[in-house]
Amino acid sequence: MKNKTTLITGGTGFIGENLAKYLSNNGWEVNLLCRDLQKIAELSGLIGVKKIHKYDGSYDSITKALVDIKPTIVFHLAAYFSAEHQPEDLDNLYSGNLLFGSQLLEAMSNSNIKSLVNTGTSWEHYKDSDYNPVNLYAATKQAFEKIIDYYVQVKGFKVYTLKLFDTYGYGDRRGKLVDYVISSIQNHKPLIFSPGDQMLDFVHVKDVVRAYERAALLLTNETPSTHRQFGISSQKLVSLKEMVELIQKLMSDTSTIGWGERDYRAREVMKPWTGFKKLDGWESTVPLEVGLLELIELKRIQNAD
Amino acid sequence: MKNKTTLITGGTGFIGENLAKYLSNNGWEVNLLCRDLQKIAELSGLIGVKKIHKYDGSYDSITKALVDIKPTIVFHLAAYFSAEHQPEDLDNLYSGNLLFGSQLLEAMSNSNIKSLVNTGTSWEHYKDSDYNPVNLYAATKQAFEKIIDYYVQVKGFKVYTLKLFDTYGYGDRRGKLVDYVISSIQNHKPLIFSPGDQMLDFVHVKDVVRAYERAALLLTNETPSTHRQFGISSQKLVSLKEMVELIQKLMSDTSTIGWGERDYRAREVMKPWTGFKKLDGWESTVPLEVGLLELIELKRIQNAD
Repeated sequence: MKNKTTLITGGTGFIGENLAKYLSNNGWEVNLLCRDLQKIAELSGLIGVKKIHKYDGSYDSITKALVDIKPTIVFHLAAYFSAEHQPEDLDNLYSGNLLFGSQLLEAMSNSNIKSLVNTGTSWEHYKDSDYNPVNLYAATKQAFEKIIDYYVQVKGFKVYTLKLFDTYGYGDRRGKLVDYVISSIQNHKPLIFSPGDQMLDFVHVKDVVRAYERAALLLTNETPSTHRQFGISSQKLVSLKEMVELIQKLMSDTSTIGWGERDYRAREVMKPWTGFKKLDGWESTVPLEVGLLELIELKRIQNAD
Repeated sequence: MKNKTTLITGGTGFIGENLAKYLSNNGWEVNLLCRDLQKIAELSGLIGVKKIHKYDGSYDSITKALVDIKPTIVFHLAAYFSAEHQPEDLDNLYSGNLLFGSQLLEAMSNSNIKSLVNTGTSWEHYKDSDYNPVNLYAATKQAFEKIIDYYVQVKGFKVYTLKLFDTYGYGDRRGKLVDYVISSIQNHKPLIFSPGDQMLDFVHVKDVVRAYERAALLLTNETPSTHRQFGISSQKLVSLKEMVELIQKLMSDTSTIGWGERDYRAREVMKPWTGFKKLDGWESTVPLEVGLLELIELKRIQNAD
């Protein structure tokens, strides 16, 4: 790619921050669009970022950023997540996952910037269906892809949607499974689980961000009015039980785990989506054991600080 | 149906008002949920309506209405329409066509009311595609159907989405084609058109409202977790040119029409969607000539007032 100028949304999230750092270190000019500029101060990974633009909820604030940056491609990672929503989550799910994204597409269209890497979730495909959302969050992701299709068909956009599985790595503040297990063991807290037979598809954040860059590269060769979806999968499933036992082994922990003390969720994903298309030229490279070992070590050092 | 208690959204719109009147006259207890109570005063067709509830933009105001009414089914007709949107339409397109509908589904789910007749548009199917939206309005309709699918799959909703074509009839305040032609001839104003070869599928509002009632009846026999889409089509296409010439004939008008003085729209629908499923036991009954003649006569009387 000749002009590697980009705008990233969701740069204060776990994957967004890692993507910003990775691209900055790889010759990209990285700019962020952020709602909450206060969050930026807390982030160590954004040193290489050229400029941070404020999104104030308006279409105009996005246009202003695009005119200033003139990116060749936009990476859209901003999202409002809720595993099991409550009525009070609706406003945020809609403004975060639908209105903001549509303002972004409209602003891109009117600024003649038509390449986008979008973020979806494997949870759009419960029980390996073409479409069966695990939760309302996944439904808003699918709904947004239908909005994208308008800009693809009518305005000639080129879009890849990367559907993510279980992502992990150092610096994750989402309170996800891997961190829960490691922190509990480090702090000698009891671990309580469902029976643990659900299969998981872990991809290290280092591999995830490489998939975004790869998608950007492949998009340059696409013709206008293209929208493709890809599964960013490790292609190696482990059960929750196997994953916890692996962490115990790596941490030389022998405590008893409370398997079955919790119920499965109402729509627990027992077997991840397998019906995805692979992103050409990308594969997961960090073995789970290696990724976990590094994470355990970094968290140990962090705790010792 | 035993309990014919319903809530209608969009009751101040052309089809909603006609549906409220029709159902009230057919043994239904009709309640409305309206954002703008001022509009109600202007409407003559709502005499039979039992109660009008205010939607103030919140989930809670919908829940309050549902708890009060206890409808067996909801007819969802509220929408924000824009044929060719501008950036400033985005907020209304999202709050009107996505957030409001999702608040409605969530409130229904939590009130254990799970039967819905939803309103779609044939414009989701440009060039007879499975999905290719004519405009952003049609894209928001399709996106909302993906949100509906969450409530269908996860919460056991039963939903029919009726996809409408060109609706017409007396009392239409939308400034659509038929009214433009009749009013222009009545007021001796010149008529200016594209070449006029686009085919149209006109369904009289009297037939449209019967389709909604028919859908409600059929829904009672469906099993939970069902979402079906139907095209509410006349199955008789006429070109714009033929339609205008028919109106001229009915009004004994011999003026010259400015064919080709306008361009077609960028995404003019030249041939309406034909790939739809028919709603069992319903068909369009009002011949175009009869519907137009009645409309011309009623508009003549209105003008004479």
